[in-house]
Amino acid sequence: MKAKQMMDKDFIYASKDDSVVDISIRMEEQKKFTVPILDDSMKLVGWITSLEVTKGLREGKKTISEIMHPVEDILTINENKPAKNAVILTANHKLVSIPVVDDDNKVIGVCRAFDIVDTLSDLYDIKVEKLYEAMEEELKGITWDELMEASAKVSTRTTGIPITAKEYENNIKNSTFGEAIWATGGLEKFFAGLISVGEIVIARKVGRAKRGAK
Amino acid sequence: MKAKQMMDKDFIYASKDDSVVDISIRMEEQKKFTVPILDDSMKLVGWITSLEVTKGLREGKKTISEIMHPVEDILTINENKPAKNAVILTANHKLVSIPVVDDDNKVIGVCRAFDIVDTLSDLYDIKVEKLYEAMEEELKGITWDELMEASAKVSTRTTGIPITAKEYENNIKNSTFGEAIWATGGLEKFFAGLISVGEIVIARKVGRAKRGAK
Repeated sequence: MKAKQMMDKDFIYASKDDSVVDISIRMEEQKKFTVPILDDSMKLVGWITSLEVTKGLREGKKTISEIMHPVEDILTINENKPAKNAVILTANHKLVSIPVVDDDNKVIGVCRAFDIVDTLSDLYDIKVEKLYEAMEEELKGITWDELMEASAKVSTRTTGIPITAKEYENNIKNSTFGEAIWATGGLEKFFAGLISVGEIVIARKVGRAKRGAK
Repeated sequence: MKAKQMMDKDFIYASKDDSVVDISIRMEEQKKFTVPILDDSMKLVGWITSLEVTKGLREGKKTISEIMHPVEDILTINENKPAKNAVILTANHKLVSIPVVDDDNKVIGVCRAFDIVDTLSDLYDIKVEKLYEAMEEELKGITWDELMEASAKVSTRTTGIPITAKEYENNIKNSTFGEAIWATGGLEKFFAGLISVGEIVIARKVGRAKRGAK
């Protein structure tokens, strides 16, 4: 996934000669906390957040050029860079948003923290059931019921709380990957649990194949 | 993980009788875009963002009570709710932050979009190598080299590009879970690939055990 697939194309921008009052009204109307300041060729020349605007209004500043951050202070991301880089910049610098530029350094969008949250949280929202379906598909010759039985066995062993295959199946229908990794104590542990399940069913499959071959 | 583990305890708050000018200065100094408005017992009575402040300054409003969102318009999250709920609220409502309350409805923190990005991105930053280490640990009797060989075989088959076990090992040392799921086309596909690897090594282990038992 690239930065451009995560950006807001519907951003507002301003020129350095625009009035602080006018821009403050546009920001409120469109609920934007940050605005890139561009020249006529859409190149970045500055950046303002609503906090520069509050300061500007209080101090009676007239134009954006009097309140904007200079271009050299602004982190940008190229549209074709991995979306992951935008995530790292946002987290490390506690940014509300980052301007996204093309190869000519023209601003083509803005990548906002809550858009990133939206994208990242999609992963967490994948149902655990989907992972089991991928497992069933991959491990040809193993049935869904065998997977549920093996999972109930591993779960009972790990948690000490007996659970039936049917109960396990209901659980994974209602739980997401995010919940599962939080519940098991992290990605590695969740993954180790699934590998245990895989080991049980694969051992059984191999055993069946050997018996069949005799 | 609970909401309280993801919140910023170091938030600023204000009372409804505070002056708009004073709060605007505190917000700028501490770079906060949102401020919960609390009563004397720390209960939420309102909420402002820097956009209400710009409007208030422009229109000459004096106190916070004249510009704040009323309490009934504000989404909150209980400190003991799953952190996942804060993630969903932020993404669905495009929030910059959410106040976190205790059982008495007192505000004890604020959960910000970039803190959520930070937390979510930790998952993406887990090295793929760690998952293989979990796999090696879980599948007792299978060596690291066997895992790398099986992985190189699966990778060659899936991508059509030959890769050696050594090259595969170098790849997973340098790549993260986030990169791996983006590269393979999603969590389910990444996971199916790992299950294929598991199938190869487990079949080999079972075969060895049978021969050993004879």
